Amino acid sequence: MGAQVVEVVEHPMDSQIKSASIVSVGNEVLSGRTVDTNAAHIGRQLRRIGVPVVSAHTVGDRREVIVRALELAASEADIVIVTGGLGPTDDDLTRQAFGDYLGCELELRDDLLEAIRNRFAARGMEMPQRNRIQACIPKAAEPIANEWGTAPGVAAERGGKLFFALPGVPREMEKMLDASVLPRLGQLAEGQAVAVQRLKCFGTGESAMAEMLGDAMDRDRNPLVNCTARIGIITLEIVATAASRDLAEAMVVDEETRLRNILGDVIYGTGEETLAEVVGHKLARAGRTLALAESCTGGLAAKLVTDVPGASAYFNRGWVTYSNEAKVAELGVPADLITARGAVSAEVAAAMAQGARRRAQADHAIGITGIAGPGGATEQKPLGLVYISVDDADGTITSRHVLFSQERSFVRLRAAQTALNALRLRLGG
Amino acid sequence: MGAQVVEVVEHPMDSQIKSASIVSVGNEVLSGRTVDTNAAHIGRQLRRIGVPVVSAHTVGDRREVIVRALELAASEADIVIVTGGLGPTDDDLTRQAFGDYLGCELELRDDLLEAIRNRFAARGMEMPQRNRIQACIPKAAEPIANEWGTAPGVAAERGGKLFFALPGVPREMEKMLDASVLPRLGQLAEGQAVAVQRLKCFGTGESAMAEMLGDAMDRDRNPLVNCTARIGIITLEIVATAASRDLAEAMVVDEETRLRNILGDVIYGTGEETLAEVVGHKLARAGRTLALAESCTGGLAAKLVTDVPGASAYFNRGWVTYSNEAKVAELGVPADLITARGAVSAEVAAAMAQGARRRAQADHAIGITGIAGPGGATEQKPLGLVYISVDDADGTITSRHVLFSQERSFVRLRAAQTALNALRLRLGG
Repeated sequence: MGAQVVEVVEHPMDSQIKSASIVSVGNEVLSGRTVDTNAAHIGRQLRRIGVPVVSAHTVGDRREVIVRALELAASEADIVIVTGGLGPTDDDLTRQAFGDYLGCELELRDDLLEAIRNRFAARGMEMPQRNRIQACIPKAAEPIANEWGTAPGVAAERGGKLFFALPGVPREMEKMLDASVLPRLGQLAEGQAVAVQRLKCFGTGESAMAEMLGDAMDRDRNPLVNCTARIGIITLEIVATAASRDLAEAMVVDEETRLRNILGDVIYGTGEETLAEVVGHKLARAGRTLALAESCTGGLAAKLVTDVPGASAYFNRGWVTYSNEAKVAELGVPADLITARGAVSAEVAAAMAQGARRRAQADHAIGITGIAGPGGATEQKPLGLVYISVDDADGTITSRHVLFSQERSFVRLRAAQTALNALRLRLGG
Repeated sequence: MGAQVVEVVEHPMDSQIKSASIVSVGNEVLSGRTVDTNAAHIGRQLRRIGVPVVSAHTVGDRREVIVRALELAASEADIVIVTGGLGPTDDDLTRQAFGDYLGCELELRDDLLEAIRNRFAARGMEMPQRNRIQACIPKAAEPIANEWGTAPGVAAERGGKLFFALPGVPREMEKMLDASVLPRLGQLAEGQAVAVQRLKCFGTGESAMAEMLGDAMDRDRNPLVNCTARIGIITLEIVATAASRDLAEAMVVDEETRLRNILGDVIYGTGEETLAEVVGHKLARAGRTLALAESCTGGLAAKLVTDVPGASAYFNRGWVTYSNEAKVAELGVPADLITARGAVSAEVAAAMAQGARRRAQADHAIGITGIAGPGGATEQKPLGLVYISVDDADGTITSRHVLFSQERSFVRLRAAQTALNALRLRLGG
C-alpha cells in the first residue's frame, strides 16, 4: 500500500506505525533460478494489517552475509521477516546466522525433533539424519510451528525489534505467516486500520476497465483502488485507511457498491475466488451437474473445475478428445461435420458440448475447440481462435473468441477461463 | 551462482571477478502489487556472462532512500543495476537520487527530449509536458538509449564502480540490458567463465538425495552443486567457474557424469525439461500413443501432457471419470469391482488403465485414482493415497503411493507427476 509506505517514511519517528523489512535468503533467488514471490506475498499480507514493508533485501547462502542482512533490516524497520535457508542441506544457513545475530548457540529441541520424526513416520519413512538440524534453533529464540513441512520457523526479539524466519517454500511460508506471524503483528498495528476488499473481474481488458472506472483509480484517493491483471483475471483491490477498522470497512463497502454499479457482471467474485469456485457454487446450489468436452485445452478446464474441493457433487465427467477420431468415437461428433467445418469450428464445439451432455446425462456441458499453437494456425483460423459452446436443456450457445497471444499456455488458460465464464453467465445470478 | 558468490565474499579484493548488486525501486514492489521479476531476469543474464549478483535490495519511491540503497549496493559490489523510478510522474525519483549520489544537478538533454517528442509524434500525439523530466539526467552521467519506451536509462561511474539505471517496465528493461548494459559488463568479466548445467530429478526427497550425494554439495566445491526442490521436482544445478568457458564446461561434464552414476534414473532430464516433455519425446520417437484415465487428478495429467507443443502426435485421448458411474460407462470398469474394492484401489486403477487403452486403441494407458482431499479419507485409505496403473501390450504395472500433504493441489500435482514418471520408467532409456 503505497500510501502507507510514504506515510511511514515521511514520519520515521511515528511510533504508532510499525514497519517491516523482508530478507530473502538463497543463491537460487539471486541467480534468477527462482523468482521471489514470497516478498510480494508478505508485502500484501502485512499491508492487510496495516504494517508497511519499507525495504526488502536478497542475499546468498552465506552465514555472515545473512547476519549482515539481519542487521541492515533491523536498522530500517521494527519487524524483520526472513524467508529461506531452513532446509536440511548444507547450503541452508539461516538458523546458524540467527544464532550468530542473537549471540547464542543452536540447541536441539526434542519436541521439534519428535515432530519431524512423526512427519516422516506418517509416510512410513525413517527421518534422515540430516533432518536433525531442522530441530535446532537458537537458544534465545522460539520455534514457529510448521504443520506443512519439516522445517520449523524461528521467532526472536532483539533490541525491541521482532524477527521471524520462515521456510522459503511458498506453501509452507504462507501457511505459517497466516497461522503464527500475522496474529502477533496484528496487535502491533493498533491506531491504524486498513480494510481491503478484492473484486475479481473477467471479460474485459485492463485499459477498458480503467476507462470505465475514470477517477476511481486516482493515486491520491482513500479508499485507493489498485488494478492488477494476471493471466486474464483482473483484480480490483479497494484499500481504505482509517483510525478504526469499522470506519475503514464502511469506506470499503461504499466503494465496492460504487464499482459494482459501474462494472456489473464483469465482477465474478471477491477475495481470492476463482471462476471455477463461483461456477461450482452456482451448480451445487442449483443441484445441477456438469460435463466437459475439451480439445485445445487438453484437460485444463476439468483440472480447474476439480481444483475445487467437493467438485464431485456437480462435476460428472470430462473428455479430452484431442484427436478427431476421439471426438467422433467418444462424443458422437459427426465425422463429416469435422470434414466439412474443420475440428476448430462453431459446429464442432456445439456437437462436442451436446454429445458430452447426452453421454454424461448432465444438466450442463461445455465444448471447447481451438488453436493453442504454436502450430495449426491458418489464414482463416489464426492462433488463439477458440470456439466455446455451452449446452443445456434450453439449448446451445456457441461463442467465437480470438485470444491474442503467442503463448500456448496463455491461450489454453484463457480458453478454459472463458469457457467457465460463459457457463457462469449462462447460469446467471 | 553460488560458486562465484562465495568467491567474491571470500576475497572481496579479488579484482578478477566483478560482482553486481541490484536495486529495485517502487512502492508497488514493496507492497506486493508487483512481483519483482526484473531482479531474477537480471540475475540470469549476468550469470551468463560470469558476473555474479551478490545482493538485491528493494526500496520505496523516496529520493533519500534510493540514495542510501545506491551507497549500500556500491559497498557490496562492483556493478550496481537499478530498475524503476524513471517514469514521468512525481513518484519517479531515481534520476534525482542519482544526481544526489553523484553530487551533481540534472540537466535537460535536447537530444533526449527530441527522441521522446518523436516517439509521441510517431503515434500522432504531442508530448505531455510531464514527460520533459525523462529527458533530464545527471550532468556527470550518460544516457542509455531506450528504443522501446519513453524513459532513457542512466549510466554513471563513481569510485571505480559502475552504475546503470533502467526503467522498471520488464520489456524495456530487458531490451536495454541486452543492447547496452551486458555488452559493457561482458568486457569486465573477461578472465572468468561460468558453465551451468541443470539435472532434473524425480522420485526421491531432498534429504534422501543429499544423503546419496554426500560431499558433492559442500559449499566450498568448484563445481558447486545447488539443490532446489519445487513441487516434487528436485533440480541439481552444477555451476563451474574457471578461466575459460571450455575449462568450465569440461568441469561441468565431469560432475554431471559423477552425479548420473550416483543417481541413475532418478535424473529424468536436463535444463528446464518437464516430465511430460521427456515422456512425450520417448513416445514420439517410438511412434507410440498414450491414453489417460484420471479420477483424483481430474484432468491435470492430460493438461501436463498437452502443455507440450505437438502432443497430438502421441496423445490420443483422455477421460476424467470423476464419478463411479463414469468409470463404469466410459472405461468399462466392472461396477462390482468398485463395490468390492472401492473406487480408490489397485484393482480399479488397473481396470481404468486397461479400459482406456482398449477404448482408445492406444499403445500405452495410465489409470490414476486416489484421495486428494480434503474429504474422502478413511482409516484404511488416508489422504494422499493414490494408485497408479500403467498398461501396455506387455501387461499392467500398478503402484501404490501415499503422497503426504494437507494440500489438495499438491497431492493432485504429485499424483500426476508420479503417473508420468511411472510411464517414463516403463518406457525405459
